[in-house]
Amino acid sequence: MERDGALEIPVIAANDARCKHLFDNRYGTGQSTLTAILATTNLLLAGKTVVVAGYGWVGQGLALYCRGFGARIVVVETDPFKGLEAASNGFEVRPMAEAALVGDVFLTGTGSIGILRREHFEVMKDGALLANSGNYAHEIDVAALSELAVEEREARLHVTEYVLSDGRRIHLLAKGALVNIAASDGHPVEIMDLSFSVQALSIHYLANRAAELAPGVHALPADVDEAIARARLDLLGMRLEEATAEQQEYARSWR
Amino acid sequence: MERDGALEIPVIAANDARCKHLFDNRYGTGQSTLTAILATTNLLLAGKTVVVAGYGWVGQGLALYCRGFGARIVVVETDPFKGLEAASNGFEVRPMAEAALVGDVFLTGTGSIGILRREHFEVMKDGALLANSGNYAHEIDVAALSELAVEEREARLHVTEYVLSDGRRIHLLAKGALVNIAASDGHPVEIMDLSFSVQALSIHYLANRAAELAPGVHALPADVDEAIARARLDLLGMRLEEATAEQQEYARSWR
Amino acid sequence: MERDGALEIPVIAANDARCKHLFDNRYGTGQSTLTAILATTNLLLAGKTVVVAGYGWVGQGLALYCRGFGARIVVVETDPFKGLEAASNGFEVRPMAEAALVGDVFLTGTGSIGILRREHFEVMKDGALLANSGNYAHEIDVAALSELAVEEREARLHVTEYVLSDGRRIHLLAKGALVNIAASDGHPVEIMDLSFSVQALSIHYLANRAAELAPGVHALPADVDEAIARARLDLLGMRLEEATAEQQEYARSWR
Amino acid sequence: MERDGALEIPVIAANDARCKHLFDNRYGTGQSTLTAILATTNLLLAGKTVVVAGYGWVGQGLALYCRGFGARIVVVETDPFKGLEAASNGFEVRPMAEAALVGDVFLTGTGSIGILRREHFEVMKDGALLANSGNYAHEIDVAALSELAVEEREARLHVTEYVLSDGRRIHLLAKGALVNIAASDGHPVEIMDLSFSVQALSIHYLANRAAELAPGVHALPADVDEAIARARLDLLGMRLEEATAEQQEYARSWR
Repeated sequence: MERDGALEIPVIAANDARCKHLFDNRYGTGQSTLTAILATTNLLLAGKTVVVAGYGWVGQGLALYCRGFGARIVVVETDPFKGLEAASNGFEVRPMAEAALVGDVFLTGTGSIGILRREHFEVMKDGALLANSGNYAHEIDVAALSELAVEEREARLHVTEYVLSDGRRIHLLAKGALVNIAASDGHPVEIMDLSFSVQALSIHYLANRAAELAPGVHALPADVDEAIARARLDLLGMRLEEATAEQQEYARSWR
Repeated sequence: MERDGALEIPVIAANDARCKHLFDNRYGTGQSTLTAILATTNLLLAGKTVVVAGYGWVGQGLALYCRGFGARIVVVETDPFKGLEAASNGFEVRPMAEAALVGDVFLTGTGSIGILRREHFEVMKDGALLANSGNYAHEIDVAALSELAVEEREARLHVTEYVLSDGRRIHLLAKGALVNIAASDGHPVEIMDLSFSVQALSIHYLANRAAELAPGVHALPADVDEAIARARLDLLGMRLEEATAEQQEYARSWR
Repeated sequence: MERDGALEIPVIAANDARCKHLFDNRYGTGQSTLTAILATTNLLLAGKTVVVAGYGWVGQGLALYCRGFGARIVVVETDPFKGLEAASNGFEVRPMAEAALVGDVFLTGTGSIGILRREHFEVMKDGALLANSGNYAHEIDVAALSELAVEEREARLHVTEYVLSDGRRIHLLAKGALVNIAASDGHPVEIMDLSFSVQALSIHYLANRAAELAPGVHALPADVDEAIARARLDLLGMRLEEATAEQQEYARSWR
Repeated sequence: MERDGALEIPVIAANDARCKHLFDNRYGTGQSTLTAILATTNLLLAGKTVVVAGYGWVGQGLALYCRGFGARIVVVETDPFKGLEAASNGFEVRPMAEAALVGDVFLTGTGSIGILRREHFEVMKDGALLANSGNYAHEIDVAALSELAVEEREARLHVTEYVLSDGRRIHLLAKGALVNIAASDGHPVEIMDLSFSVQALSIHYLANRAAELAPGVHALPADVDEAIARARLDLLGMRLEEATAEQQEYARSWR
């Protein structure tokens, strides 16, 4: 809209605030996805092989937290830098065709489409579990899975069991929708605290500065963004160092 | 009964099998306790200070898994060897009087009684969360907490909020009972698989060898115990090394 | 130079390549700093409290690797977002005045100056160990430490012991210079492989495209940068997923 | 000697003290082995596949610390319980014949013999690195490696390079001897503090109680063992909880 000159009022790109994007997908989606899967299935992660598709913020959180519960992680990535980061953090990096053969649990968080497909379902182990935390409902090709299955039933609340013609069973959580929202409570409340603070203070800022702000997209002022992070640290009982005058001077001259 | 000559049949001490005690409390209680807490409260662990009372199997699992979710851990222990192990694994070790001042979440898994008491409730931070995974209902002194409170209400399913006279709120999960059982599904199914295998094969062994076994307490034969572990490894897609003849000979001579 | 119109040839900003900045400080400085400290001192990290000043790439690597060896970490940061990230990864965040009281080991990696000062030396524990992996020689105020000491001696190669008037001893590594370079071999060879590849291929690119490149600062083309990451992954035995035509189309439309 | 009636004086089994065996192999050998390898080779662990043979105390320390540095771990074990523990901690478990194909670094800590053999050398990747932290010099079959090589040279201090007929190179550290002793300073000093404390206090106890102790093997009294652990915790700034009278009574009745 801004590019097209159609934005007649000042707005704030709340999603670009660091208190939003540095924390919600990595920590919020990571924890709530695991909680949803474990509460829904009552399965043990220790010793399992978990395939994490995508190593952006979402995938990083998932991989880290699954390892925290004793799972072995295989990361599927198309981007070589993210792939090398995943490897450098101790994770195996494999194409899905190989990962499909060894995974007990498959988590998608790529933001893309068609991540788990017919060719993968055809070779998965009996009992494989699939869940999505990424793009709304297109990361797992549910239609292909359904087509492949000879039987389909609700095994447990939010768990659909697909029985294939050779007897193997594949379990899909929340019908492939975002598992942490569809099968649980979504982001933890403290993550929402951060996001809502950004939104509320953005509106507060717009309301107070309406006169002086030009129409167009503005960033949340850094000091407001920082104030939210400081408030959260304070609540956690953590305390920052204050830069000395000498350090502030050094930082300025260095820049 | 055996000591008193009152045991007239052969029995197997199923709880001593390694497939039972090496896995259930550490991995099973650890994971299911966290799942119960997170699913019940929807709180974020990242950045929180979690106080873990007891560093036996249960506490080790809790500390490891909470750290896996980004919490800072403070361990409370009375045993100096366990305390030194906790410290050597990177955890702070503090008496409860100190831990009570900094904890956001308190988890008890000691197997003893009176771990969280009036003197601790009196100094806890507003919003402190208490849960028990240890001894049935006596690790948290719920009576003392109730006595101290001026108000008491169900804040959420399985969460009781105690409001103290100075306005601080303390949240107790599952009324102090075992949180992974009272507020969730208990041990993950694969942990139960191991335990039930031990019990079923113990009965099978007793039934088959009834004639030759003397009355008294027997151990599950090592090869049966091992067969269960091997079956589980197999299911996980893991494979053991076989000792060479030379290595077996070396092991014998060394003993 | 470019801004001032003084750059008469095309150059490549090799340091901006992702194969350079994503890996060298975090993994290279992290590992080589620890190796230098442990090889130089033969001290045990398990159970120690390590204070990490700065939570940029260098500090993140140091904190992660020290925790890997069983240390408890206290992070000192002035930036609220980095501080909240440190907390979210399970580290305590404290001002140096508090951290100075509890640290066994102090590591600086801020890129700033005057991080460890007289006021901190005055309250440190007997036997505190100081090392710098950040800004060349100004993160630790060595002059102030020397002035405070009543005795100064080489305790071990690359370890200077300062004895204070009250008998406390503070140990400084490599005289406050970059410890991984001054007391060890610097970055691991594979990190240098990445950096040298970036530099060599930058020169190769400049030489081949000299005619068509305008004077000024250019970025290393993404496909060259990617080729280096791919080569490293290949050497590690890791394999990437290839995006399907459908996924590539989706990515384009989404952008 | 005791069994044969040949022990004419009281002795203490110092090695059975908990301050000795709970800490030296796991933490001491683990850290000093890594330090030796990294200081000797200057190689990066992040992204490497490390094969750890044996998952006793030594192997557990090695696997944990290598993962701490970003390596992917493959554990080789013959014991099904240890194998299942390794898997439950997130490590892959494979026979050496498979692990030999994927490892970049091979660490032996089994206490047995002939762990890395001709058949493994024959399939290892070019550049594989071998080091031993277990049984003195028999875990790696150096004679077979030497026989297989067409060339043998000191690539770097403590690193022998074996060139095989197909051009692949295998690097052996410290000629297969204990790498943390032969190529570095052995156990960290604090581990030796614990061991020497056990030994010194054992002698002190024997000297003071000579009159009342019968000839034979005695255990270090638990309170002496505990006093050492308490002293170490104190030095680390850690503090234990004291059991209440009520808890002590409960513990007694429960036993």
